[in-house]
Amino acid sequence: MATIRLHGNPFSTATMRAAASLHEKQLEFEFVLIDMKNGEHKKEPFISLNPFGQVPAFEDGDLKLFESRAITQYIVHEYADKGTQLISKESKKMAKLRLWLEVESQHYDQPASKLVWELMVKPMYGLPTDPAAVEENEGKLGTVLDFYEKTLSQSKYVAGECFTLADLHHLPTIHYLMKTQSKKLFESRPHVGAWVADITARTAWSKVLAMQPLLSSK
Amino acid sequence: MATIRLHGNPFSTATMRAAASLHEKQLEFEFVLIDMKNGEHKKEPFISLNPFGQVPAFEDGDLKLFESRAITQYIVHEYADKGTQLISKESKKMAKLRLWLEVESQHYDQPASKLVWELMVKPMYGLPTDPAAVEENEGKLGTVLDFYEKTLSQSKYVAGECFTLADLHHLPTIHYLMKTQSKKLFESRPHVGAWVADITARTAWSKVLAMQPLLSSK
Repeated sequence: MATIRLHGNPFSTATMRAAASLHEKQLEFEFVLIDMKNGEHKKEPFISLNPFGQVPAFEDGDLKLFESRAITQYIVHEYADKGTQLISKESKKMAKLRLWLEVESQHYDQPASKLVWELMVKPMYGLPTDPAAVEENEGKLGTVLDFYEKTLSQSKYVAGECFTLADLHHLPTIHYLMKTQSKKLFESRPHVGAWVADITARTAWSKVLAMQPLLSSK
Repeated sequence: MATIRLHGNPFSTATMRAAASLHEKQLEFEFVLIDMKNGEHKKEPFISLNPFGQVPAFEDGDLKLFESRAITQYIVHEYADKGTQLISKESKKMAKLRLWLEVESQHYDQPASKLVWELMVKPMYGLPTDPAAVEENEGKLGTVLDFYEKTLSQSKYVAGECFTLADLHHLPTIHYLMKTQSKKLFESRPHVGAWVADITARTAWSKVLAMQPLLSSK
């Protein structure tokens, strides 16, 4: 097998998303740490791997990719027979899975990522949290999670009875938000709360978190 | 073949995106007009098809979907052998195509859609355009299109030498922006300009525009 390289930062949600899919597929990979504090992601050689200057970037032999959700989709299709089966060969199940990949990307991610920024990243850098932005995005995320609650009352995972890539894509933001006041949004919805407990307990996810030595030691 | 139904509005960019893929695949479908001025998209029976109250929604027999990009991906996979080949069977080409689906969704769409809102939709409803929002989003879109220009100087379409779903997803916002001052962002970049001329001239796209009787008669 060609060498797989994931370039990124273990604290970045997008890097964590890509790493989670590699661990679920039980793939060996080399992690290349990008020092974002020193702006390595905005300079060569990284900028040739990701022209938008954002982590992660990915290599599998001579294939070079960026965008975490494109990386995970490549991994689950290319290595369909390894590790956890994160996609489906059945057309209608796959359609539902793709719908949920879009729900995460188009509805869940924006308010969730803004809350991670306000409640987790800003305090780490000594910046003041904007209460109005928190309130607005908790409102938006709550509305989205109402739909998740309805869905998860009918199936164990978002796209059916099996854990798939559509669940996996939520893990990094959920991980951070469960350390903030916004955890109430997940815990107050019983089926969402059970889903969060289930997906965050996965062995592959613990391997992603083990890549964060500084945060783990806090 | 089961009846395919697309529920939406022919002026909505997301509806146009789904319709474009149906026309490229030469599929017969029933178009169900949703009267958004009267809020039909926020009420039953539509809200059962799309819980977020946004057009379009889609049915293929007993399969029900929403999210335009999930609908198009279902169509191109389910009907791979019909009409234009919009995906690839080759793993690395498909990886590049998925990367470009993410570039459109994560980088291009937000500034492009905000410009459509400010320069096209607001004037139609007699609302004032916000010059600061236009300037900010033209700046963001220009930066994104610099990367497109570099890519399109090396290949005819974004993901290679063939027109794919990754090109198609851009069509609705490009169509509207080419009627506004923001057309300069596309035309000032020669390879982007040639790409826009090429993809907007497709027969399938003219069929999408023919669904807009009121706008066509203006």
